[in-house]
Amino acid sequence: MHSNNPENQRFSIVADVGGTNTRIALTKASLIQQATVQHFANDKFDSFEQLLHCYLKSQQVITCESACIAIATAVNGSSVRLTNRDWLIDKDSIAKISGAKRVKLINDYEALALSLNDIPAAQLTSLVNVREVQSSLHTSTNKIVLGAGTGFNAAQLISGPMNIKSQINCAECGHMTLPITNLQELKLRDYLASRHGRASVERVLSGRGLVQLYQWLCSEKKLPARDLSAAQIAESACADDDPVTRESAALFCRFFARVAGDLALAYLPYGGIYLSGGVTRGLAPMLREAAFMAEFTAKGRQSQLMQSFNIQLITSDNTALIGCAAALPEPLSAIGHQSSVN
Amino acid sequence: MHSNNPENQRFSIVADVGGTNTRIALTKASLIQQATVQHFANDKFDSFEQLLHCYLKSQQVITCESACIAIATAVNGSSVRLTNRDWLIDKDSIAKISGAKRVKLINDYEALALSLNDIPAAQLTSLVNVREVQSSLHTSTNKIVLGAGTGFNAAQLISGPMNIKSQINCAECGHMTLPITNLQELKLRDYLASRHGRASVERVLSGRGLVQLYQWLCSEKKLPARDLSAAQIAESACADDDPVTRESAALFCRFFARVAGDLALAYLPYGGIYLSGGVTRGLAPMLREAAFMAEFTAKGRQSQLMQSFNIQLITSDNTALIGCAAALPEPLSAIGHQSSVN
Repeated sequence: MHSNNPENQRFSIVADVGGTNTRIALTKASLIQQATVQHFANDKFDSFEQLLHCYLKSQQVITCESACIAIATAVNGSSVRLTNRDWLIDKDSIAKISGAKRVKLINDYEALALSLNDIPAAQLTSLVNVREVQSSLHTSTNKIVLGAGTGFNAAQLISGPMNIKSQINCAECGHMTLPITNLQELKLRDYLASRHGRASVERVLSGRGLVQLYQWLCSEKKLPARDLSAAQIAESACADDDPVTRESAALFCRFFARVAGDLALAYLPYGGIYLSGGVTRGLAPMLREAAFMAEFTAKGRQSQLMQSFNIQLITSDNTALIGCAAALPEPLSAIGHQSSVN
Repeated sequence: MHSNNPENQRFSIVADVGGTNTRIALTKASLIQQATVQHFANDKFDSFEQLLHCYLKSQQVITCESACIAIATAVNGSSVRLTNRDWLIDKDSIAKISGAKRVKLINDYEALALSLNDIPAAQLTSLVNVREVQSSLHTSTNKIVLGAGTGFNAAQLISGPMNIKSQINCAECGHMTLPITNLQELKLRDYLASRHGRASVERVLSGRGLVQLYQWLCSEKKLPARDLSAAQIAESACADDDPVTRESAALFCRFFARVAGDLALAYLPYGGIYLSGGVTRGLAPMLREAAFMAEFTAKGRQSQLMQSFNIQLITSDNTALIGCAAALPEPLSAIGHQSSVN
């Protein structure tokens, strides 16, 4: 009985382990406790266990009820290795460190998709003027989230009618073919393919992708490439203080708009398109420029249809935690309570 | 009460109106009556009404219970204009001609997706050896159907657990960006874009696409192009009796495999990929060649994942009718019966 009283419930852990940073927080009764939200640079830790231990110590929490960890890689089984870092995220280790009786691992875009119906308005900004056609024609519950960070991916949320569980469709969209349309883009594709064997979407649409795009443009223009991070290139481009960073970011945004448009045709997300990811956020001012929507809607006979999608940018870096909180495993006490009744 | 007795139920109509042909049949108690299945070339009729009238007369049917018509275009509202033909498919006209009290219009790929769990084994042939990994790892209910006919499209079926309705996701995949990867393909893209403004997937992956691909290859090779239909090009290529039709079909299959692979990454259809469409079927022998799977699985770090998808070819042209029968509107008598009980 006491499990229904939030005051008596213990904390649970939600975390979003990206390729570069980890966001982590405590929840009580599935609600994120805002004062407990912390960000960590993964580089400062040898392992996720070390990071988790450090966090729990700083929060003065000894033992937790359950944990849901979102990870920027395909999740299959009870332990997962990060794609871009030699970290093993393991259910048993997490249980041991945190005392959590139940631990769940999910994909980071699954967590983002799970959050789409509950994102606070303050964490969203619209890239387009919502047109009348959109609000009158579509009362769809089909939404997608997509974006560029350490990698690129997308996920789809189809909300069920009341009492029916929502459906999440995970994807590996970062590995789709990079959609090129002219000779300049073919040269970029060949440059990327010579280094990576092929050119997938995320060879451009990611932090490393933006850096390589910049380096390629410098070599094309026979200019020395500065040693800039993706964040620095985005910042410079948005400030318009260097024509090459600017052109790199413009080309990045063109690919981003084209891929977003292609995915809109594949999923028909009449309920809205949500853009996420650190690199996406870094380029937000440029995504608001007319060139973005021009490329997004440039789908020939379907350009009218393309104008009916609402596109919103997720401005917070913590949104996946909302999805993790929604996906937290039910506490054992609640299950025990149920079965004792039956 | 008598509405539950199939013997006393009246016929309903199911039809699949493609860009080139129409498949049509009568159902009783939602079961297709095989002896009533007929195919018509659309060119021989001025309107769908004329075709329907002619069919019902040949079947000696005066009045029907309901009708479900699948159409190769986006369906929105109570009447739909075909994309490639000046036909208006209108619910009221269909009701008037057939006597059907309830008429439903659905997209043709929606009908195909609705049929995926019920296709008879005799109408399927596997393109790959189902690997152990596939059967052991995935018990997914997520399937996609895709294919080339008059146009190109795909749709997704997510089967719900028992008593929960299946979810169909429609798409407009034919309008996605044609994924090119080298200079030859860029030249083809530019040739198509010079005629159509841009080059979408279905500018290659369709009957007209195969013809234009052949014409382009002839002009590239400075050879005279024969006046061949898509079916003739496919037949010649499969018989290997002309190097240019052969090369055209091989390039078509390479694009088909690449697009199918990209869509597999977007939908992760662990329950299976089903290939449909007249042009697809015409090229079946070439889809079985090693080059198809080589291109399908060529997704870099995800090539292992790509080998876990089962790919089957739908060999029948009537499959969408199964989905139409499943989507038939409930007869008014059944609804009346229910409400009289309550």
